[in-house]
Amino acid sequence: MEDVKVALLGCGTVGTQVARLLDEQAADLTARAGAWLHLTGIAVRDIDAPRDPAIDRTLLTTDVSELIAGANIVVELIGGIEPARSYILEAFEHGASVVTGNKALLAAHGPELYEAAARADVDLYYEAAVAGAVPVVYGLRESLAGDRITAVLGIVNGTTNYILDEMTTKGLDFDGVLAEAQRLGFAEADPTADVDGFDAAAKCAILASLAFHSRVAMDQVHVEGIRSVTAEDISAATRAGYVIKLIASAKRRETGIEATVAPMLIPNSHPLASVHGPFNAVVIEAEAADRLMFYGRGAGGAPTASAVLSDAVAAASHIVEGGHAPRELIYADLPVLPIEESVSRYQVELAVDDTVGVLTEVSGIFARNGVSISAVGQEHERVLQGEDGLPGRAVCHLTVTTHAAPYAALQQTTAQLEESRYVAGIRRVMRVEEA
Amino acid sequence: MEDVKVALLGCGTVGTQVARLLDEQAADLTARAGAWLHLTGIAVRDIDAPRDPAIDRTLLTTDVSELIAGANIVVELIGGIEPARSYILEAFEHGASVVTGNKALLAAHGPELYEAAARADVDLYYEAAVAGAVPVVYGLRESLAGDRITAVLGIVNGTTNYILDEMTTKGLDFDGVLAEAQRLGFAEADPTADVDGFDAAAKCAILASLAFHSRVAMDQVHVEGIRSVTAEDISAATRAGYVIKLIASAKRRETGIEATVAPMLIPNSHPLASVHGPFNAVVIEAEAADRLMFYGRGAGGAPTASAVLSDAVAAASHIVEGGHAPRELIYADLPVLPIEESVSRYQVELAVDDTVGVLTEVSGIFARNGVSISAVGQEHERVLQGEDGLPGRAVCHLTVTTHAAPYAALQQTTAQLEESRYVAGIRRVMRVEEA
Repeated sequence: MEDVKVALLGCGTVGTQVARLLDEQAADLTARAGAWLHLTGIAVRDIDAPRDPAIDRTLLTTDVSELIAGANIVVELIGGIEPARSYILEAFEHGASVVTGNKALLAAHGPELYEAAARADVDLYYEAAVAGAVPVVYGLRESLAGDRITAVLGIVNGTTNYILDEMTTKGLDFDGVLAEAQRLGFAEADPTADVDGFDAAAKCAILASLAFHSRVAMDQVHVEGIRSVTAEDISAATRAGYVIKLIASAKRRETGIEATVAPMLIPNSHPLASVHGPFNAVVIEAEAADRLMFYGRGAGGAPTASAVLSDAVAAASHIVEGGHAPRELIYADLPVLPIEESVSRYQVELAVDDTVGVLTEVSGIFARNGVSISAVGQEHERVLQGEDGLPGRAVCHLTVTTHAAPYAALQQTTAQLEESRYVAGIRRVMRVEEA
Repeated sequence: MEDVKVALLGCGTVGTQVARLLDEQAADLTARAGAWLHLTGIAVRDIDAPRDPAIDRTLLTTDVSELIAGANIVVELIGGIEPARSYILEAFEHGASVVTGNKALLAAHGPELYEAAARADVDLYYEAAVAGAVPVVYGLRESLAGDRITAVLGIVNGTTNYILDEMTTKGLDFDGVLAEAQRLGFAEADPTADVDGFDAAAKCAILASLAFHSRVAMDQVHVEGIRSVTAEDISAATRAGYVIKLIASAKRRETGIEATVAPMLIPNSHPLASVHGPFNAVVIEAEAADRLMFYGRGAGGAPTASAVLSDAVAAASHIVEGGHAPRELIYADLPVLPIEESVSRYQVELAVDDTVGVLTEVSGIFARNGVSISAVGQEHERVLQGEDGLPGRAVCHLTVTTHAAPYAALQQTTAQLEESRYVAGIRRVMRVEEA
């Protein structure tokens, strides 16, 4: 039996599980790859740091370049842009295939890495970069190769999914849930990458590039996080038959690609509505297949290691028996649309004066901006207090749900609503996904 | 650009869509496969039969062998064992790769076909044979190649899923819903293959073979259909927080593989519980990845054609650029366990006398047979009418939920319960899946 030399860069949560499973499941992996996946070394920063007992310490090294030079497959799990990018390019130059879980790098330098892999005639695999164990990269690159994808919608960040879940089930505010999640280790001390949507945006860029065979960079993704979602937003959504989820959305329109990350109202009947806690899921809409969903654990050492090892098996089998991973990332090269041209259904909740003529005024503003209304709901009235503490004006809550409308038209509509003398305030504006 | 010659056998619902999409999406498919998927002919029984206008009638032929002899990829969509099997073996002998959606053939002759493909050094693909557009064959063969699968649970038959859904939402009986489904064309005039579980059993055999790298034939799958499911079973399930689904289940136990198709109680929180109507879904449990789910349309011309075309792209890319589909179907060759050794949680509902000592008697029977009880529920009392029309004995309903227990022990338990003088009757016995 041939052996394929595997170099592991990084020995954190995922790297440790990769090393353990390469050892424990050696017989199975060998049968499937047609070669022994032989772990020849693990590059770490500090050889003497404490490690899981599953790690064979004799494999540890700080000489990354020497390790890469002797490898057939380099598994990069150090994360970040540099030095990960340089190591991967080094691996390609030495004729090694690369398996990585590095979403930031893929989102920033995907095309460069694809080109380098093709030039070296080796594989680039990155299942673990999006949604942990969920095999959505396989889905988009290989199992949907015979179809035309129209949309990808994903819950791809576990921290925000957990926070929104907790807010929903316990009726708590964002700040309280975030603090508790940080205490429990479910959210980072600096939660920006998660709660402000940047982690999801990197994954959205990768998914959009794969789905539409076009260059979509992370900074072309319009990002709105979940900090502004209130307990009241969530209870209003629940009453109306929706859940609020942070959705990474990539859609093909006539003129290009729309890529956004934003909290959205998802109807309870939508398969994404029942994706809870640490689970991730990606819905793919394709012309022939219609709707597909891939669901599974979005993070964690062992689940992510499962994705890494499947990639390693595929790369090894190509080394031994020929063939290669899909190489054509970009052949369509559709433009990414500016956010102003993106189209969505919206729900706008207004506090308005409880007087005659309000509906005419409000619906007129929507109409003048070309935003078509699909439904209007009116909730219980209340009397606002004036600043002097005395009763102020009588208001009621108006919930306007629109048909699909351009972002720019919606922005103009809300600006004009703000100025209307009938409107006491805009309570919320949120995107709505179809059922 | 090279061209890869594709011969299509069969021009029914799926074949028609395959021909249409090969034409309409030619540019995309060519970019992904690295070769033009050139449809060279369509084998049909009757050249003059009416056809969809998308079909180029000059491609129709009745000379199957000549068509196969000139092809690089043969797409077999005629179904059934013969002549499909002979045509596929003929294709392999001519050095052509095969894409098929033929579940019956795969379940009956999978290992023979795998061996013939490997001998001829060509590919055998069959994504469309299980769950339509849902890429679960890819999932099991390729994207989980780095993990060890412990269980596969699937909703893989749309007809029964539709019938159970209708019974659940409308509170109707099986017979009424079946008749309506037949009228609407959702169920066959002879519904046996669907409602008695044989279609699901063929898919179960394929899934089990793939998941456990072992030979699992359709007749080794224990099959129970849904004819015996009553409206009362369903309303009792709803009250208890379950839905009833026909589940194809394949599990790895210490001593071998358990393969069953049976109606099961699925907790509402389980991802399979919200799979409705024509959708199929397969949950895969793996040691490292934990729980994954693949969800999508289980049937229909275009969705199934999407799966066929993805397979064709993969096969074409191997022809042009080397490599091949996974070849190792069977390297573990675990035995399939007899049903008596299969293990499940059960829910047993009894009508029992409403007297002192009943619980002791009933729980004693479970205990003597080694079946451990996890919960007992007691529902409203009622008085049974005697055969003479006069009030008979006072009974109450006892619902006993067990921990995992062997099938044989459960059978013995229910036999002894039947004989107990406290037990007026066994209302239902149903398997229960964990949350």
